[in-house]
Amino acid sequence: MVTPQAEQAAATQLMEQAKEHLANPASEALQGQLQQSHPAQIAEMLTGLPSEDRQKVVEALPSEAIPSVLAEMQTAVRNSLLANLDVGVLTETVCVLPEPYAAKLLESLPNNVADEIRETLDPKARERIDATLEWPKGTAGRLMHVDAVSVRAHVTIAAAQRYLRFRKTAPHNSDGLMVVDRANRYLGKVTYAALLTNPPEATIESILDPRAVAVQASLSEEETARLFEQRDLFSVAVVNADGALIGRIAVDDVVDVIRRLADQRMLNLSGMTREDDTFGPVLPSARKRAIWLGINLMTAFLASSVIGLFEHTLDKIVALAVLMPIVSSMGGITGSQTLALVIRGLSIGSITSLNARRLARKELAVGGLNGVLWALMVALVTMLWFGDFRLGLIIAAALVLNMTVAALAGWGLPLLLTKLGQDPAIAGSVLLTTVTDVVGFFAFLGLATVVLL
Amino acid sequence: MVTPQAEQAAATQLMEQAKEHLANPASEALQGQLQQSHPAQIAEMLTGLPSEDRQKVVEALPSEAIPSVLAEMQTAVRNSLLANLDVGVLTETVCVLPEPYAAKLLESLPNNVADEIRETLDPKARERIDATLEWPKGTAGRLMHVDAVSVRAHVTIAAAQRYLRFRKTAPHNSDGLMVVDRANRYLGKVTYAALLTNPPEATIESILDPRAVAVQASLSEEETARLFEQRDLFSVAVVNADGALIGRIAVDDVVDVIRRLADQRMLNLSGMTREDDTFGPVLPSARKRAIWLGINLMTAFLASSVIGLFEHTLDKIVALAVLMPIVSSMGGITGSQTLALVIRGLSIGSITSLNARRLARKELAVGGLNGVLWALMVALVTMLWFGDFRLGLIIAAALVLNMTVAALAGWGLPLLLTKLGQDPAIAGSVLLTTVTDVVGFFAFLGLATVVLL
Repeated sequence: MVTPQAEQAAATQLMEQAKEHLANPASEALQGQLQQSHPAQIAEMLTGLPSEDRQKVVEALPSEAIPSVLAEMQTAVRNSLLANLDVGVLTETVCVLPEPYAAKLLESLPNNVADEIRETLDPKARERIDATLEWPKGTAGRLMHVDAVSVRAHVTIAAAQRYLRFRKTAPHNSDGLMVVDRANRYLGKVTYAALLTNPPEATIESILDPRAVAVQASLSEEETARLFEQRDLFSVAVVNADGALIGRIAVDDVVDVIRRLADQRMLNLSGMTREDDTFGPVLPSARKRAIWLGINLMTAFLASSVIGLFEHTLDKIVALAVLMPIVSSMGGITGSQTLALVIRGLSIGSITSLNARRLARKELAVGGLNGVLWALMVALVTMLWFGDFRLGLIIAAALVLNMTVAALAGWGLPLLLTKLGQDPAIAGSVLLTTVTDVVGFFAFLGLATVVLL
Repeated sequence: MVTPQAEQAAATQLMEQAKEHLANPASEALQGQLQQSHPAQIAEMLTGLPSEDRQKVVEALPSEAIPSVLAEMQTAVRNSLLANLDVGVLTETVCVLPEPYAAKLLESLPNNVADEIRETLDPKARERIDATLEWPKGTAGRLMHVDAVSVRAHVTIAAAQRYLRFRKTAPHNSDGLMVVDRANRYLGKVTYAALLTNPPEATIESILDPRAVAVQASLSEEETARLFEQRDLFSVAVVNADGALIGRIAVDDVVDVIRRLADQRMLNLSGMTREDDTFGPVLPSARKRAIWLGINLMTAFLASSVIGLFEHTLDKIVALAVLMPIVSSMGGITGSQTLALVIRGLSIGSITSLNARRLARKELAVGGLNGVLWALMVALVTMLWFGDFRLGLIIAAALVLNMTVAALAGWGLPLLLTKLGQDPAIAGSVLLTTVTDVVGFFAFLGLATVVLL
């Protein structure tokens, strides 16, 4: 039975044993602990270790346990280990992994190692892996297991049951049999539950769930995940363009996709990728993030050059320099609120071309309303602070303008980027900041120049 | 069969029929379309309509379809409809919904309406709903269905199969039978697949999966979701503190939790909540977001007051005003990269007290390295732009300092907030900006005052 305390305690103990092992490799306490742990727990522990220590702990693992531990890992962490594993263990890993994982593993190996492993695989196993590798990354085909078990529609439940008993096992995490016609075209699905609760003499056809959906292997993994979410599915059949059954996708792999895409979306907002290994070496992490900082620096210089246009004004009225970050910051927040809402709406599919314009009107109204509200507040504070009535009016006008433009940009940028085939979470936030900085500084300093000088 | 085009076309057609219905309520095209659509698709279409139109489209739904459509909706959207539904439909909805949804629905109704509905429910149904309401929000108990079917360990597979045929149906989205002892204490689970692939004369005990986990009803939904993710589960048993079986959780509800928590995390970074109804009325949305803008305004004033300390310096060297946003912005980006990484690590459980300090060292190194790199670049541009060697050195020093502090704050703030029981995504980003603005402005303007004046 799982309690939060027990889970936490197990994870802590595993990590402590690993540290003890690192300090004193002769001690055998870790071995015992590893045998009691779920591969996912071991994978999590390894993820939490610095990359240079992971290898030493992996060497303490019984070699038959390595494949399943590798299967549970994030790609970046797994890749940090692959270089030091011998080809035998890697081949074993490829053999025992379900096809989607095996395909992913082969892809992340250097070409010559991958080819060596492929040649030692038996032809059937190779064929199964190749069947998923045929489909591009990010499609349903890449998520599918090719071990779907199928029956014909005219057989009886009793016959299907005999067939299953003869097989002795069902595919891992499967919830039913696929039903196909003579040409292997997908007709529907019968769940194991239906096989157990209906009379044995009934035909498969009579208990077929016609609403059980199949997806084309070319469907994107994001749309596949959305389908699982919307329809509360445990599994779907995967078909090729001719409607022939070629595999199945189970919900546990879709859960990983949902988590991965959601993580990706959040990290993208700061220009990070999920492939960044949290506890990995410093240099690759620094390099990846440097690019984003460089892009931001260019936009910051753009904002500075806008301020530079008004050096003469700033020289005369230093209060402007004191207040100007308020205008850009309030615009930034307003825009990022709309941006987050639109990115989420696009990802769950609730924002479409049919209602996008209505949303724009709403966001403009929300941004404008808040603009007016906070502009009044800022104007008041400014008048009290600097004793200048006109300065208060100027900052208020700049705020309303910038917050309205920010709402519009927060709405329009992700939609535009999506249309251009770009990820709105990556470029959206940096473009948005550029807009709110440039408009904010220009409006505030420009108005001040016109009115006060 | 589901293709992206067909799904998209169906959604578009449904939305267009809905709009036509709104323009011309006599037309019956919508009715036909609604009958062909999955409740989840109808719910999605309603979510995309402005709140004032949703009611009119719901009235076109056959009343027996309303409960399942309501079940598929986001809470905020569902609540926008409840006020106009009559008690009969609401009662019907509560009756047909699985317990977790029924409980949630009752909670969102005004107390007097909820009580009226409770009184008309038959005692058994009321008892089932009360069994989930017993547990606090956000726990496994609130996700559980109380319809788990259980068998004793000593019976044979054949007997279990007879029992299932006698029952005629299995609980929706269940993948096996729970195994309990005489006192209803949970012993394990047998999957339907195991019942079908093993010899009928074997006992349940012999095919029991001892690793099948049960969760305590008091486990948080976040930890429950993590367990499903880590162990690739379809369902788990839910037990009370005594270990007695009280229900089951299926993966489809967990998928919703994962999606909800991930959405929440992303939206929280901009001070938004998932309960914000994207297409809802303007005023409530504006009010919710105003609070966040107000908090940000206070921190912006704090930053301004730091700049205000150096009015005298700014008055003499206007270039400082032009360049100062670069220092705060680069710090902000550095900090938010670390913040996003730490929030994600905390949510998937890969960051713990055992490795947090190691991560701090890494993030400091990454932030510092990037600080030095971009400081050199900015120094060069500054010297060329303003022809002032010392100004270049000053901004470089301020950048290195601010980016290092930012990395430390991006690491420490979410950990501190988590320790205090706060959501690191909500308060984290606003606190971080405060730190990077204040430190950035103070370092840059302070150094300039000391060195240049």
